[in-house]
Amino acid sequence: MEKEVLSRRSALKFGAIGTGLAMIGAATNALGAITLEKDVKFDEEYDVIVIGSGFAGLSAAAKASERGYKVLVVEKMGRIGGNSVINGGAFAVPNNADQKKFGIKDSGELFIKDCLKAGLGINHVELLETIVARANDTLEFAIKCGAEFKLGQKPSWFGGHSVPRTLVTGNMSGSGIIKPMTKFVQALPGCKIVRRTKFDDFVMGDDGSVVGVVVRKDYRFDKKLLSDDIENTTGKKMVLKARKGVILASGGFSADKVYRKLQDPRIPEDADATNHLGATAGALLKAFQIGAMPIHIGWIQQGPWASPDERGFGVGPQLTQQGLFKFGMAVDVRNGKRFMNELADRKTRADAEWKILRKNPESNPVAIGTYNTFDPQILSLVEKGLATGVMKQYDTVDAAAKANGIPVKALKASIKKYNAGVKKGKDEFGKPVKAFDGQGIEDKGPYYCVRLQPKPHHTMGGVKINTKAQVISGNTQKPIAGLFAAGEITGGTHGASRLGSVAVTDCLTFGMIAGENI
Amino acid sequence: MEKEVLSRRSALKFGAIGTGLAMIGAATNALGAITLEKDVKFDEEYDVIVIGSGFAGLSAAAKASERGYKVLVVEKMGRIGGNSVINGGAFAVPNNADQKKFGIKDSGELFIKDCLKAGLGINHVELLETIVARANDTLEFAIKCGAEFKLGQKPSWFGGHSVPRTLVTGNMSGSGIIKPMTKFVQALPGCKIVRRTKFDDFVMGDDGSVVGVVVRKDYRFDKKLLSDDIENTTGKKMVLKARKGVILASGGFSADKVYRKLQDPRIPEDADATNHLGATAGALLKAFQIGAMPIHIGWIQQGPWASPDERGFGVGPQLTQQGLFKFGMAVDVRNGKRFMNELADRKTRADAEWKILRKNPESNPVAIGTYNTFDPQILSLVEKGLATGVMKQYDTVDAAAKANGIPVKALKASIKKYNAGVKKGKDEFGKPVKAFDGQGIEDKGPYYCVRLQPKPHHTMGGVKINTKAQVISGNTQKPIAGLFAAGEITGGTHGASRLGSVAVTDCLTFGMIAGENI
Repeated sequence: MEKEVLSRRSALKFGAIGTGLAMIGAATNALGAITLEKDVKFDEEYDVIVIGSGFAGLSAAAKASERGYKVLVVEKMGRIGGNSVINGGAFAVPNNADQKKFGIKDSGELFIKDCLKAGLGINHVELLETIVARANDTLEFAIKCGAEFKLGQKPSWFGGHSVPRTLVTGNMSGSGIIKPMTKFVQALPGCKIVRRTKFDDFVMGDDGSVVGVVVRKDYRFDKKLLSDDIENTTGKKMVLKARKGVILASGGFSADKVYRKLQDPRIPEDADATNHLGATAGALLKAFQIGAMPIHIGWIQQGPWASPDERGFGVGPQLTQQGLFKFGMAVDVRNGKRFMNELADRKTRADAEWKILRKNPESNPVAIGTYNTFDPQILSLVEKGLATGVMKQYDTVDAAAKANGIPVKALKASIKKYNAGVKKGKDEFGKPVKAFDGQGIEDKGPYYCVRLQPKPHHTMGGVKINTKAQVISGNTQKPIAGLFAAGEITGGTHGASRLGSVAVTDCLTFGMIAGENI
Repeated sequence: MEKEVLSRRSALKFGAIGTGLAMIGAATNALGAITLEKDVKFDEEYDVIVIGSGFAGLSAAAKASERGYKVLVVEKMGRIGGNSVINGGAFAVPNNADQKKFGIKDSGELFIKDCLKAGLGINHVELLETIVARANDTLEFAIKCGAEFKLGQKPSWFGGHSVPRTLVTGNMSGSGIIKPMTKFVQALPGCKIVRRTKFDDFVMGDDGSVVGVVVRKDYRFDKKLLSDDIENTTGKKMVLKARKGVILASGGFSADKVYRKLQDPRIPEDADATNHLGATAGALLKAFQIGAMPIHIGWIQQGPWASPDERGFGVGPQLTQQGLFKFGMAVDVRNGKRFMNELADRKTRADAEWKILRKNPESNPVAIGTYNTFDPQILSLVEKGLATGVMKQYDTVDAAAKANGIPVKALKASIKKYNAGVKKGKDEFGKPVKAFDGQGIEDKGPYYCVRLQPKPHHTMGGVKINTKAQVISGNTQKPIAGLFAAGEITGGTHGASRLGSVAVTDCLTFGMIAGENI
């Protein structure tokens, strides 16, 4: 029903042709003229104002507060944590202690090589070097802020990484970081988080520095609007001074029905994303208007482990990427054959799935495996997946094939072929099965299946920052004084496609660095 | 020597780490605050001001002048025509009269399908539909403005196009369009082109419309600067009123040492591009600051038919794309084998060449063929190519192999294999050899060789326009009143990668449309 309402709206609003955007009413400053300090009266004053309360925002706020600054975190939604609180809480830390403990040989060079391979070589290496240098500090800082990780265990092995280097939170969710960090921040003297408060504009000083922001308090995000950023007029305007500066940590735009479609017109306005509904481009577009430079805008990463059988991020991504994609496999339902390395980087896998789905939109590929395929760390999610229905359980391969419309003989042959490859340590798609010690799909059920559908997950593009998290101006190629950014609103770290579990690293690390440098 | 100076400057300026940009002095408005009409006094007044004098700019100026408007074309360089005057003058016109004359079946759907395939599906289809609807009008208008095409002949077949649909100018150069069009424009009453005049800023009205520009006259582009846009302080400021509006036609940024590297850090500051040296991002970045939305920034198209043995665009591109790449072939010098479909789209071919060059930077692939392989239309360029040295001539395959360090036996085997495929009408890389009527590389010399090196050629990203060439604001999703754009400064038409000879179409068509609508 909700989908229908949206579609009708879009049809009306977008007009008949392609991505042509027709008129929509504007709530914000249409001129886009910069708000100048001399023209405003500040309602409140802070040292530091942080836009957004995800990993990057809270990390920045925690570090800045710790330094004694009076900090305000502005969150537009009704709940704290953005996408960070609903994701899988997986945190890649190159050269971490658990790798050493379990004899896993990692290096900064290897991490950067992996990122560059997935990112098609266009990553900004100095940002990756910064992550290598600081990721262990970040882990320590997150733990200090109360985050709980499953430490002392063998790290998880995420797709596209050459070695296992990913730590996971105790509750297998980003909330395992966000919730304690929120408490930590709120307990610090002089630090405040306000919700339902929307960033609308920057306030600029005479010297070109950012000295504050225009926000609306008591704003309510409206998911029914085509563009909440433009159409939503709720809330009351306030002008806030930021004596030390502003830290932009408002995330990406995977849920922005308009701007994401301008980058990839194949994404319908009502397409489900893994993101929370507030993940829009408003703050990003405002940053461009004060000279921040767009980097890599146009690359939208789609999660190849997502499922059409649940909304948003859900639990499917963990059941596949830390489960069925490992010892199990993914098959093309049209012919029962495998069609990709299930542990390749995200872009490679999403491209392989889209190749099928663009031809046959109903033929969602299926991930299939047995109980052994789930990481011990996510076993508790198996029941949850079955309960929500995103994962189905079958006693036999025949039943799994029948239920998913897969030719049963072909599926059995594929399982046999796959298992033989695992035994030999050589996979037809280059999956690193050598490390599996002969473990593949078991001969006996139950069998577990998750249907696959790539969903917009992470927008690679954003503003250019330097290694101090300062936003660089296109007018000067110097930092814009008083403006920092961290996390998904920045571009460059991940290049064309981000490796799984490096977002948490990126957000927490550059958030912390912004808090250190402001 | 010049290269050395640049390298040293860059080393100093960019600092030691990756793409990290250190301080460079700023010539322009560092604040980036918008210039408001109420704060300025206009030195001169026009109806329409056009930024840039390439295909898009002159087409816009011609159309607007024709409508009786007083038009000023502002060109920052010392000569008129930007990249347009140095390119190959190839103009794709779907459904043109020469196709019909020679029995070539084309359609708008086929043209759009070809563009979408090369563009990886992210093209803005409504812009392609506009091109289909108007390309023949554009051709007619260009002819009216004095452009001379080789008409009545079989159209050229460019890589990635399903059918021959490309017309070429009489002199096989874009100057065959630019030069007469310049005369046409200058002969119209009230139309003026000024050179060495640099656009610096927009002037905005109270209602958010663009009402003029700030320029510098007597400015001199300085190729020795790392960023001319930022560092060059020459010229005298003037404020110009544009009663009807401004048309942005300033091109792409393939020669911008700083901004192109931020999009692809693998492109060294001193890397040669096919573009003229003034192809920088200054005007584009200013447009973002008044709310124009970045589309597809990050995709830089590299010309797979360019050569390291000449600077800039040169003649190599024509000798390969309208010559050796057709009945001839390209080989990997390391093993004497072919490695790509020489008529694939540009991205596919540049990727194939980079795969070799990223591993062995000295192993430039070589295009090889015999005299029969050159399009009759470019035969006069053969002598030029030999004279400048970008193409070499050898009596025997042995001599060609020896001179280029190719294993001779392997090269002979490759030619044999390739010719056999041509005879059979089936090529191992999917080259459409069926249409070649058995013609391949001849058994007898002379043989012609061009060494290959992809060069930055076209920046796919830019501002979002609608089908009327109006620039769309991210603040409203409506047109910015008084602002139009056409050509390479816009994004969306070509998606991730442009097909050869569609730039001329895009620039002339949307330039004309901007002139019609302003």
